[in-house]
Amino acid sequence: MFKKLLTLKEAKQRIEKSLSPKPLGIERIPLKRAVGRVLAEDIISPLNVPPFHRSTVDGYAVIAEDTFHAQEDQPVILNLAGLVEAGAISGSELSKGSVLEIVTGAPLPTGSNAVVMIENTTQKDETILVFKPVAKGENIMEKGSDIHKDEIVLRKGDILSHREVGVVAALGLPHIRVFRKPRVGIISTGAEIMEIGKPLPPGKIYDINSYTLAAAVTEVGCMPISFGIARDHDINSLKSVLKKAIEKVDIVITSGGVSVGPKDIVPSIINTLGKPGLLVHGVAVKPGKPVAYAIVENKPVFLLPGNPTSALLIFHLIVRTVLLKLGGRSESLPTVLKAIITQRLFSARGRQTFIPVTVSKNDMDLSIASPAASGQSGSITTLAKADGYIELNANTQFLEAGTEVRVFLF
Amino acid sequence: MFKKLLTLKEAKQRIEKSLSPKPLGIERIPLKRAVGRVLAEDIISPLNVPPFHRSTVDGYAVIAEDTFHAQEDQPVILNLAGLVEAGAISGSELSKGSVLEIVTGAPLPTGSNAVVMIENTTQKDETILVFKPVAKGENIMEKGSDIHKDEIVLRKGDILSHREVGVVAALGLPHIRVFRKPRVGIISTGAEIMEIGKPLPPGKIYDINSYTLAAAVTEVGCMPISFGIARDHDINSLKSVLKKAIEKVDIVITSGGVSVGPKDIVPSIINTLGKPGLLVHGVAVKPGKPVAYAIVENKPVFLLPGNPTSALLIFHLIVRTVLLKLGGRSESLPTVLKAIITQRLFSARGRQTFIPVTVSKNDMDLSIASPAASGQSGSITTLAKADGYIELNANTQFLEAGTEVRVFLF
Repeated sequence: MFKKLLTLKEAKQRIEKSLSPKPLGIERIPLKRAVGRVLAEDIISPLNVPPFHRSTVDGYAVIAEDTFHAQEDQPVILNLAGLVEAGAISGSELSKGSVLEIVTGAPLPTGSNAVVMIENTTQKDETILVFKPVAKGENIMEKGSDIHKDEIVLRKGDILSHREVGVVAALGLPHIRVFRKPRVGIISTGAEIMEIGKPLPPGKIYDINSYTLAAAVTEVGCMPISFGIARDHDINSLKSVLKKAIEKVDIVITSGGVSVGPKDIVPSIINTLGKPGLLVHGVAVKPGKPVAYAIVENKPVFLLPGNPTSALLIFHLIVRTVLLKLGGRSESLPTVLKAIITQRLFSARGRQTFIPVTVSKNDMDLSIASPAASGQSGSITTLAKADGYIELNANTQFLEAGTEVRVFLF
Repeated sequence: MFKKLLTLKEAKQRIEKSLSPKPLGIERIPLKRAVGRVLAEDIISPLNVPPFHRSTVDGYAVIAEDTFHAQEDQPVILNLAGLVEAGAISGSELSKGSVLEIVTGAPLPTGSNAVVMIENTTQKDETILVFKPVAKGENIMEKGSDIHKDEIVLRKGDILSHREVGVVAALGLPHIRVFRKPRVGIISTGAEIMEIGKPLPPGKIYDINSYTLAAAVTEVGCMPISFGIARDHDINSLKSVLKKAIEKVDIVITSGGVSVGPKDIVPSIINTLGKPGLLVHGVAVKPGKPVAYAIVENKPVFLLPGNPTSALLIFHLIVRTVLLKLGGRSESLPTVLKAIITQRLFSARGRQTFIPVTVSKNDMDLSIASPAASGQSGSITTLAKADGYIELNANTQFLEAGTEVRVFLF
């Protein structure tokens, strides 16, 4: 009963070692649905952007040298030889002493090397008066100046925000290859757990973990699949739900049924389902000590504690990294805030201790952190109220009120 | 042609004034699909959480006073009178001198006021040896200690992350009322714009704005609906697309066709579609000066410039706030980073100037900001490479290299 527990670091290393270093797979999706997805390929431009010299203003395509003597009170007078429309084939040609009317985005006519803005001109019959000189290249966006043909514009692993989506659109690519979203099966266990939306019989509580975990899984870009509530007094039904989940999804997360009590049978069932089975069983952390981890049929299975705050903290500390990795995402560093604690905080002897805190500003505009709850780790509102957590290492007995600590923000 | 332009602030005030102060509407959705949505109601708890005094450990329910003399080498001996299972009806009763075996989450039997952890006991026949005293209330989570019946647990306007979803699940509520996602119609205009996925004829460029704007709209929690590309040389077709969009969606965003050129007809068409029509036409900013804004049939219509970087900057500066508001979201303050600029930056005379920059660290670990592009606002890669933007006010001629500036991060 007092076997030596793994430290969090050891547990994470063991988990890391058990996983394939590669994301789960690749799929081809329309660009329209790409926001938030992760590129599974380098994107190499098949073309120049823009594909031709392009006017960036409305005005007149000119030969820059023709305008060099233009002045506010002494305009240069040039012949209006026609019009270049946007979207037109770039076949026009410009000769010395002439201009062609041109609109924003239209291709520059051959022979021209600059565009005069319409604001700096006046039309008079078939001539244009130019009141301001332009330099060679002025008001032109050169062919390929934005993206060169064959340039690598985005890299495998890039996350597609609206800006990256724009780059792909510029290349005209309607589909891209992205990493497949990991499918994550979620099972709540416990004889006292009741499905939401039904009346609550005496002695029961509603299923919270299916919802928090599904939502947390969604937030890291994975696809949650709920397998409902398994009664942990019915070994056969629990076994069959676990088997079904392991068969259908990429990763399984259970909650409940992992402590030392007579009813805590999830870890022992897991070991009957396939090799290597349990790789982690118990970690020296508080809350969440009973957490376990297994590989069954090559699929990672996380066994989280039943109480919602513990389950979510373990999700943040251990599971999240794995989901990100299997989805091809690199883990971003947590945002850290320095804050002063308002009361003495104790660590659990010999265990790395995580305390959910709310952060606010005091009179002197310093950030202060207070525990989000009265220490009841079964509380669901604890995490809802918390802005982040503080970490006390296993050798720290307590931190005195007034100590400056690092708050890891959610 | 040189009419006085509105400042950005004036334009934003005028837009703000034209809008209903309320979000667009409310819908009832299943809790399973609630992540990222905005609550349209206060959530008041219909029950106590937990609904009964609950054991937080596996062990034995006791009368605390019975254990007060327990010591490591001199245990108290109590009668094992039965078992309380998790999920059981809380009907058991405990008498002095006895214990009832209890598992985590099970209801405390009547008469009991504490739970001894199994680790601090040994069973011997029908008695339990207790080696450590427990205080009254120890290892118990009291009825309603997490959430009181009738307590307001979440507020209208709260955004539902996995933590808030957990709170709603704890109350057993399978549905919630959230603000409806604004439907945003997106229209690209321009004779030179070509749909992606098709070969690119000479003189054309691919439609970027439909994709960047749809993605940006998605990112602020709205639902983009693409109305494709309208040829701006065909007044009737442009008019009919605009009418259709205004009829079908809540907000319309067009891009292109707003400058002073002969082909820039979107603003004039808008004025024929309904009152009050254009409320903003041109703003003293760079890039994005030609931006316009109208109300038609009570729907906001934003007319953005055609070039992708300008369109997105204006989206960030003006449109985003409106979409957030109509979706019931409060605007979060932009994340600001202090950085040193690497080169002299000029503002456009008389216009508030926004310069997309990339941020990196120099040898001395200081943040430095460099313009993301060579100043070509038609560039799509400019924004993809930028981490944020710098603002120069209309009266600043330039900022010297080495100046510390605020970078507004995307």
